[in-house]
Amino acid sequence: MKINDIQTPSLLVDEVRLERNIRRMAQRIETLGCRLRPHVKTHKSIEVFERVRNAGHTHGITVSTLHEAEYFFEHGVTDIFYGVGIAPNKLAQVASLLERGCELRITLDSVEMAELVAADGEHRGRPFDVLIELDTDGHRSGVLPESLELLKIGKLLHESDGTTLSGVMTHAGDSYACSSPKALLQIARQERDRTVFAANRLRDAGLPCPVVSVGSTPTALSIDDLSGVTEVRAGVYVFFDLVMAGIGVCTIDDIAVSVLTSVIGYQREKNWVVTDAGWMAMSRDRGTAGQEVDQGYGLVYDEGQGFAGDLLVVSANQEHGIVSTRDPSLPVAYGELPLGALLRVFPNHACATAGQYDKYYAIDGDGLISEWSRTNGW
Amino acid sequence: MKINDIQTPSLLVDEVRLERNIRRMAQRIETLGCRLRPHVKTHKSIEVFERVRNAGHTHGITVSTLHEAEYFFEHGVTDIFYGVGIAPNKLAQVASLLERGCELRITLDSVEMAELVAADGEHRGRPFDVLIELDTDGHRSGVLPESLELLKIGKLLHESDGTTLSGVMTHAGDSYACSSPKALLQIARQERDRTVFAANRLRDAGLPCPVVSVGSTPTALSIDDLSGVTEVRAGVYVFFDLVMAGIGVCTIDDIAVSVLTSVIGYQREKNWVVTDAGWMAMSRDRGTAGQEVDQGYGLVYDEGQGFAGDLLVVSANQEHGIVSTRDPSLPVAYGELPLGALLRVFPNHACATAGQYDKYYAIDGDGLISEWSRTNGW
Repeated sequence: MKINDIQTPSLLVDEVRLERNIRRMAQRIETLGCRLRPHVKTHKSIEVFERVRNAGHTHGITVSTLHEAEYFFEHGVTDIFYGVGIAPNKLAQVASLLERGCELRITLDSVEMAELVAADGEHRGRPFDVLIELDTDGHRSGVLPESLELLKIGKLLHESDGTTLSGVMTHAGDSYACSSPKALLQIARQERDRTVFAANRLRDAGLPCPVVSVGSTPTALSIDDLSGVTEVRAGVYVFFDLVMAGIGVCTIDDIAVSVLTSVIGYQREKNWVVTDAGWMAMSRDRGTAGQEVDQGYGLVYDEGQGFAGDLLVVSANQEHGIVSTRDPSLPVAYGELPLGALLRVFPNHACATAGQYDKYYAIDGDGLISEWSRTNGW
Repeated sequence: MKINDIQTPSLLVDEVRLERNIRRMAQRIETLGCRLRPHVKTHKSIEVFERVRNAGHTHGITVSTLHEAEYFFEHGVTDIFYGVGIAPNKLAQVASLLERGCELRITLDSVEMAELVAADGEHRGRPFDVLIELDTDGHRSGVLPESLELLKIGKLLHESDGTTLSGVMTHAGDSYACSSPKALLQIARQERDRTVFAANRLRDAGLPCPVVSVGSTPTALSIDDLSGVTEVRAGVYVFFDLVMAGIGVCTIDDIAVSVLTSVIGYQREKNWVVTDAGWMAMSRDRGTAGQEVDQGYGLVYDEGQGFAGDLLVVSANQEHGIVSTRDPSLPVAYGELPLGALLRVFPNHACATAGQYDKYYAIDGDGLISEWSRTNGW
């Protein structure tokens, strides 16, 4: 199979870049003397995860849905952390996965939810393994590390027969809003310090806290010391994307995922090229809109065609992309974009764009293409 | 199956509202003396389409991908128009569908593409059935109705053994930017007039133009006379959404699709409720951001819970939704939102949100729930 055999729009993975990104993170984690619990929510693909595992320094995975947990468990992965606060209507499925031999860990951030989960676990006669979610940067969920609630939750989880207290976790989502190495280092240290602080508070209260889990791609690539942390969760680094390039933790040349699209028409008076990759193919994510460089709905990839970094998907309908020059005063080089020409477009947000596809076309260093699986939904 | 048996997040269809929306469009089309070629890109579901067909006044369907064409053809629908400008790498699949008995029609908007398609059809010894796409409002693709190019394309398609010229089509996408009945009527008349004008130009040049196809939900619900038009394409009206309510062609009480989500936590100091429907469940579509009423990532549906129109999904991570009051000075009524409570959220854009799911839970007037299929991808 060659690239001309792929019907558009499709999702491509550059295996050379993917392997390089994976090695980079593995080396960092090794240098920091920690372990990686990779977040699979970006790729949701056993073929990608196998490459992450082969690079070493991992233990288990992190998932964002129980559907991912089922998929990876079916593919032989047993050590799984479900990183989104549990909902009561998901406990039956969690229990079923435990029953089938999956070492599934869940998270929650309130006394009320701890009570619900503990009661459910007691009723089932099998404890749920729980991390307490911490709010270390005001981004979304979690209890404050200095709160009384943290100790109350810890005590409740530890003392109930329906739960096992395994530790604490956080996600410094505000790192996505950073744009300098200094700011990134600061938020990475804050994520580490506040999480280790919470772990020590639990221990000082006589409670167990074996797991101290932090992570995001920007903080994992910025932190200088992970003393006290037992695992790092990061996901998007395998592919990277325009948002990560805007933050500065990768370059455009690291982005391993792109959308393949065909030129289907022109509106020359408007300086437009029309393609078959609209927002269904790119996702509606406009994550670079608030960054220094707004990349529209995606950046057209240069492979020596002479439009390096200059063509963007400037707008999108459901199945139509509108490509034009970044600088509206510059004319599109229509001669280089014949009808049917294949373009590759880098996405703003790999997690969102990949979520629109049910498979990948992986291209190795020799240009050979293979299909890789991907799962979606809940 | 009852609503409490559904794991969140999930996509719900209110059958009562769906049937009412379908009847409304069927009655309009009947009154206008026209026929509907419903666009299935919103729902991509045979169960929804069957209800549209049962309401009458339809012939065939419109699809936005060849994958939809395959799905509906497998379910017995043979008269299909693929409404996105054809790409050369899709012609083999189009030919395969024709071979299998599908009456598939395609569209294009340039002499160059007409030449490519005609050559391909001649080579295969089987003509492609083509509508010329018109640009009637400057929105995206299409040739201008008054252009010389229109006649050149028409002549080429008519004279080639590789193509059959079947007529003209347009989509007045700019209608989505309208917000008054007067503006909508104006753009609907413009869509009709410019399309009929193009059809007559072809006929005056001695070319056939049996099909004169227009459509969008806003224009279909606004036009007063469809003389000269042979078919109307509209899709989102079956579900409607917050964008359509913002345009004024439906009310919030017409919206037939919603996302079911669970309350998983609180950040009370921030006046937040955290749910398990983030942007993966809602889509990244922020279509109401530019409208008079910005509905965030979705409006929490009121079913007598006492927060009518006042709670929004104000921000979203991949699998976390942040719900708060529309007026930040008003406190969230936490007592009405216990942990595990199920909320329904209306989406900005039904096409985008439904695209995140592979099935529907349809709820009938008695609260009985059945699963309906949906297809995605390309």
